[in-house]
Amino acid sequence: MDSLTCTPSDLVPLLSSSANATALASFLCTRFSTISSQLSDATHAIDNTYLLFSAYLVFAMQLGFAMLCAGSVRAKNTMNIMLTNVLDAAAGALSYYLFGFAFAFGAPSNGFIGRHFFGLKAYPSPDGDYSFFLYQWAFAIAAAGITSGSIAERTQFVAYLIYSSFLTGFVYPVVSHWFWSRDGWASPIRPNNLLFGSGAIDFAGSGVVHMVGGIAGLWGALIEGPRIGRFDRAGRSVALRGHSASLVVLGTFLLWFGWYGFNPGSFLTIMKGYGGGGGHYGQWSAVGRTAVTTTLAGCTAALTTLFSKRLLVGHWNVIDVCNGLLGGFAAITSGCSVVEPWAAIICGFVAAWVLIGFNMLAAKFKYDDPLEAAQLHGGCGAWGLLFTGLFATKAYVNEVYPGLSGRPYGMFMGGGGKLLGAQIIQILVITGWVTATMGPLFCVLKKMNLLRISREDETAGMDLTRHGGFAYVYHDEEDISMRPTFMMTKIEPNNASPSTDGQRSPSNV
Amino acid sequence: MDSLTCTPSDLVPLLSSSANATALASFLCTRFSTISSQLSDATHAIDNTYLLFSAYLVFAMQLGFAMLCAGSVRAKNTMNIMLTNVLDAAAGALSYYLFGFAFAFGAPSNGFIGRHFFGLKAYPSPDGDYSFFLYQWAFAIAAAGITSGSIAERTQFVAYLIYSSFLTGFVYPVVSHWFWSRDGWASPIRPNNLLFGSGAIDFAGSGVVHMVGGIAGLWGALIEGPRIGRFDRAGRSVALRGHSASLVVLGTFLLWFGWYGFNPGSFLTIMKGYGGGGGHYGQWSAVGRTAVTTTLAGCTAALTTLFSKRLLVGHWNVIDVCNGLLGGFAAITSGCSVVEPWAAIICGFVAAWVLIGFNMLAAKFKYDDPLEAAQLHGGCGAWGLLFTGLFATKAYVNEVYPGLSGRPYGMFMGGGGKLLGAQIIQILVITGWVTATMGPLFCVLKKMNLLRISREDETAGMDLTRHGGFAYVYHDEEDISMRPTFMMTKIEPNNASPSTDGQRSPSNV
Amino acid sequence: MDSLTCTPSDLVPLLSSSANATALASFLCTRFSTISSQLSDATHAIDNTYLLFSAYLVFAMQLGFAMLCAGSVRAKNTMNIMLTNVLDAAAGALSYYLFGFAFAFGAPSNGFIGRHFFGLKAYPSPDGDYSFFLYQWAFAIAAAGITSGSIAERTQFVAYLIYSSFLTGFVYPVVSHWFWSRDGWASPIRPNNLLFGSGAIDFAGSGVVHMVGGIAGLWGALIEGPRIGRFDRAGRSVALRGHSASLVVLGTFLLWFGWYGFNPGSFLTIMKGYGGGGGHYGQWSAVGRTAVTTTLAGCTAALTTLFSKRLLVGHWNVIDVCNGLLGGFAAITSGCSVVEPWAAIICGFVAAWVLIGFNMLAAKFKYDDPLEAAQLHGGCGAWGLLFTGLFATKAYVNEVYPGLSGRPYGMFMGGGGKLLGAQIIQILVITGWVTATMGPLFCVLKKMNLLRISREDETAGMDLTRHGGFAYVYHDEEDISMRPTFMMTKIEPNNASPSTDGQRSPSNV
Repeated sequence: MDSLTCTPSDLVPLLSSSANATALASFLCTRFSTISSQLSDATHAIDNTYLLFSAYLVFAMQLGFAMLCAGSVRAKNTMNIMLTNVLDAAAGALSYYLFGFAFAFGAPSNGFIGRHFFGLKAYPSPDGDYSFFLYQWAFAIAAAGITSGSIAERTQFVAYLIYSSFLTGFVYPVVSHWFWSRDGWASPIRPNNLLFGSGAIDFAGSGVVHMVGGIAGLWGALIEGPRIGRFDRAGRSVALRGHSASLVVLGTFLLWFGWYGFNPGSFLTIMKGYGGGGGHYGQWSAVGRTAVTTTLAGCTAALTTLFSKRLLVGHWNVIDVCNGLLGGFAAITSGCSVVEPWAAIICGFVAAWVLIGFNMLAAKFKYDDPLEAAQLHGGCGAWGLLFTGLFATKAYVNEVYPGLSGRPYGMFMGGGGKLLGAQIIQILVITGWVTATMGPLFCVLKKMNLLRISREDETAGMDLTRHGGFAYVYHDEEDISMRPTFMMTKIEPNNASPSTDGQRSPSNV
Repeated sequence: MDSLTCTPSDLVPLLSSSANATALASFLCTRFSTISSQLSDATHAIDNTYLLFSAYLVFAMQLGFAMLCAGSVRAKNTMNIMLTNVLDAAAGALSYYLFGFAFAFGAPSNGFIGRHFFGLKAYPSPDGDYSFFLYQWAFAIAAAGITSGSIAERTQFVAYLIYSSFLTGFVYPVVSHWFWSRDGWASPIRPNNLLFGSGAIDFAGSGVVHMVGGIAGLWGALIEGPRIGRFDRAGRSVALRGHSASLVVLGTFLLWFGWYGFNPGSFLTIMKGYGGGGGHYGQWSAVGRTAVTTTLAGCTAALTTLFSKRLLVGHWNVIDVCNGLLGGFAAITSGCSVVEPWAAIICGFVAAWVLIGFNMLAAKFKYDDPLEAAQLHGGCGAWGLLFTGLFATKAYVNEVYPGLSGRPYGMFMGGGGKLLGAQIIQILVITGWVTATMGPLFCVLKKMNLLRISREDETAGMDLTRHGGFAYVYHDEEDISMRPTFMMTKIEPNNASPSTDGQRSPSNV
Repeated sequence: MDSLTCTPSDLVPLLSSSANATALASFLCTRFSTISSQLSDATHAIDNTYLLFSAYLVFAMQLGFAMLCAGSVRAKNTMNIMLTNVLDAAAGALSYYLFGFAFAFGAPSNGFIGRHFFGLKAYPSPDGDYSFFLYQWAFAIAAAGITSGSIAERTQFVAYLIYSSFLTGFVYPVVSHWFWSRDGWASPIRPNNLLFGSGAIDFAGSGVVHMVGGIAGLWGALIEGPRIGRFDRAGRSVALRGHSASLVVLGTFLLWFGWYGFNPGSFLTIMKGYGGGGGHYGQWSAVGRTAVTTTLAGCTAALTTLFSKRLLVGHWNVIDVCNGLLGGFAAITSGCSVVEPWAAIICGFVAAWVLIGFNMLAAKFKYDDPLEAAQLHGGCGAWGLLFTGLFATKAYVNEVYPGLSGRPYGMFMGGGGKLLGAQIIQILVITGWVTATMGPLFCVLKKMNLLRISREDETAGMDLTRHGGFAYVYHDEEDISMRPTFMMTKIEPNNASPSTDGQRSPSNV
């Protein structure tokens, strides 16, 4: 800050005579230049702080997924599903670093797939810093996490390793290139030649993340078929309840917490005044509004689900409420930055019914998805894209996607049908692309007998047969044998079998 | 930043002749104006980033409450209590958006209740942005969360829906208007006519949040009466232990984590130099000091509880330590920003004994509060208000509540008794207001047979009877029947009853 | 911002005549001075926001430790280990406030131990604010948390209280003074007379935190000996499995989340342009890169462990993957800020094998460490220090540790062997210091019969005998007796013993 020092006694001589014009000019310019440089540094520091902590929140969603998935499966498959969640993040980091990020954001590109920044080469650049890479990685692993829910409890671990790498490293990056990179053919930030003069608006990824994960899961679950016992001989649906509602609620709240990084964070920057700057209204307001729309959509969906399920099923079900909440979040993710808070309430209300409807369809068609992931992320994600085409407001669209006059906006807000058209194109294209890539992959894995585990393994649970043991050991057999006061509480027909409750693992050595 | 460009070759001609004064003036003013605008933008960006992430932390406390409550009740009521915690947040978002925020902060008002910003109309304004709404919503739902702990394990779900909406949407917003809005009759930020020339200092809500939640819980628990089995026929207290200490510790740590948003975040802004600015000391220091006082108070209370309970009860109890810690946090919440770190240690030490004392009183009067919520949030919250009246320092009070000369401060610090008087008024008024609103509500619910669940439901647990099943399924009956090697470990008297441990839910279909 | 107002109509008269030079100078200087002051305030606000939220993340690691430890021990010792984790934070706050922070950072000092800022006296200063204290406290408690893992399930609670205070209050602060304070004899930020002209580079504490905690744990575990049953009569290793894989995964993810505060946060500031400022590249880029290297090292270690263990043991083990991940993080913590992302992959790959190797050694020498803490934090931490000496790049070393020409850097990067030499000195010195302080302490505790619990207590579990009961109560006996429809599922040989599964606590009253 020293170079900003300004002492009148130094400055007066300079000003007293026009002969000192050069020195005076230098005096002033040095100061303006220093100020400019420090304001630039401040902007970078603020924006990167904002983006990094948003990225950390998005990463926390991976923990949320792990807990939600763990609680939603039976105890015997807990270790399996948690391992897939850890590996989505771990394998995703390497593949996204090596090539996924390059496919997604390696500009300039041809509009279909990026081709720069492999291994973060020539990075950071004026267009992006490491924080942006980290943020996008956290998004990429979320997509794979969604899919692992759909095919839980019956998928070979090797199959998981293959499809997860393919999804995170190729299928997802290509989609994000289309809709989020400057060069993507359907991107709303393309400098020119926009799809329908608009581009699709999928601000934080109802389509790019949620539909991609959900449709991949749909094909996986369809090709694998339902879990043993999921439908009885008469074809009736039999709930295979998850083993811990506490983990489900924990996971849901963590996802909610992380969604504040996912949606508001997608602005990438916060230090930007609107309307010329200097007022109270700027990107920080839009960021805050996005947090509010996100909250309202999820909460409305949760309440709608609560009362709907009470009417339909007869009890107040926290698991359903959690799923409804997440459905509302998945839906608002596309339009969160460009709609009014009241519209977010509509978004959430409809999202709850979309999820209920798709779950009814799933039961009818004997589709088994342990996490309702295809219904929730695929169904509500698609609704979210339509919702944006209907409710995006003119002012917000132009603030969030500036620099283009006459931009289309939501049909119900008087913005015509072009944006809605682009949104429908996005739904179709994502469905098609994921089907065309993941469908064949799952089929090939099935043909090679790599997809589904054996009937014996499925019955016994993957933790015992593949992952070294049961996830929980609440009672140690040695304790019981050593504590005589507690011995008499159980009848042991066979002393050679010390464990009384099936928790003993064959590999417990 | 382009408009800050300053080229000597452009500037010299302007300076060389006074004839160019107009052009020169424009040159300079454009730059100063740009700088001013960018500094304003930077301030908004920094303060909103700070407030938004603080709000996210406060929101994480709702997860903390959910886990703390879940772990503190018996397994059979886990789904019920977690559902109430999810709904506090969800229903609270809608009611706070529609009217709660308007009641609390809709300035200008009459000092009793706000009347602007319904549905966030005419918002954001120069006085507040969406981040402020989000932050206040996260506070509002905390109050309801406290109450749900007091009346856990025996309250009808419909009663919960009614009182929770009433508390979050009306009772709490009115109190926060009194003490936190610019117009509130007891607010320390009122421009003039302050209560005792001071206003009550409840910086982050020992009274506004914790006492409100605690006293609401007190009346609820008193009117409902203790849980079945909580006191035996001889009137002796029987601990009904919570089902998972791990969840209790998880919840406690999450609340601790979130408290760093709750207390330091209550500054709302961080970009403000003290003493004219430009030095190393500013609001950022006060924010950091607040984090330190919060930490020290909670930690001292935890240690005090540890050793006290060791002496009183004979063992080292992690659950008690967790409660002591939270009691210390609830107490320091009022004065965290205006006391020295050493005073926070005193605050925590006394808070631990306040909690122990109120727990003894509760046992004596056969008051049953599964979470000790009334004792902890009500009792320690009230102590916190007194503590501020005793230990608030002159310098900090004037930095945090600037612009008024001769402000009263802590009595023990030489600041006279006026602040203490205001704090006592706050305790009385909150107690009175919550009693006058929530007491009748709980009585009416009781009269209408909507308050307490039936004896059968309480014994069987609400999860089975109202929420679709038991929260945990660690062993699947189908597994056991299909894994012969594990079959011999249990004697089944009745093969028609496949479940061996009562975990099978009647609605498990 | 008002004092930045610049109106041409006011300025023109000043510029029109050189007679107004004094007024003009004052006009300009006031503005530059205001700007300077506000930029200074902005810098403080940004840096403190960055550091405070990083501190909160590091604090969240304590929750991660608590959950990781809880899940890794047997159910009967859950309350015990969680209590130690809560107390590490609580007791650590008081001791670090009273003297630990003064020992660590009380400059100026003699290079061995600090001697200012006891009880935060004369704090904040231009050199540090409360945020720095909070950040360092969160680091201090992490070291003690590591040690508690090594000696879990067999240590008297009083012994824990003594060694934990000694470690957090003295042993650790001294080490952090050596390597991190401006005066430390081996610190790389010493103004002159650096060790080997370099100082040891332990950016975020592979040595200062992880090795200290790990080696303390090593001596504790060695002196206590293995848990009963950990090695059978033939000397073969018998896994005493932790009771909940879900808690292990939860804890691991929380540690991962918090590590983004631990490593990138160790820059302490973010608002600093490199190369003169004003460009896109600055400390924010280095911070982001540090988050990326941290991620890549941990993820590579996780994947390496996954496949290695599959080959070595035969199954895909999520617990091992979690430990491998944490080993990668512990290793990269030293060099995270000064190595390229590709080097982080090498760091993680080797770290996985270091952990596997040390675990084999531990089994061979019948060393029992329930959390593998000595192997993981000690072994991988030491590897991390060596790694920095090999792979630190010239450019990054000079950006992160500026102001010294000709600074040594990584040997493999062409920087000579001096840095590696300093790193080896650090390993030896930390090993020696911790051995010389903690070794005798554990021996004395053992001599005084304060170290290890009795055989009976160990068998029954500490929760029952010392902490008031078992951590979990999934089934209430009263429920069973009151729900006749569930009664027939179990045979009770002795009605006087109502509990059927040993979960009844003697102190369950």
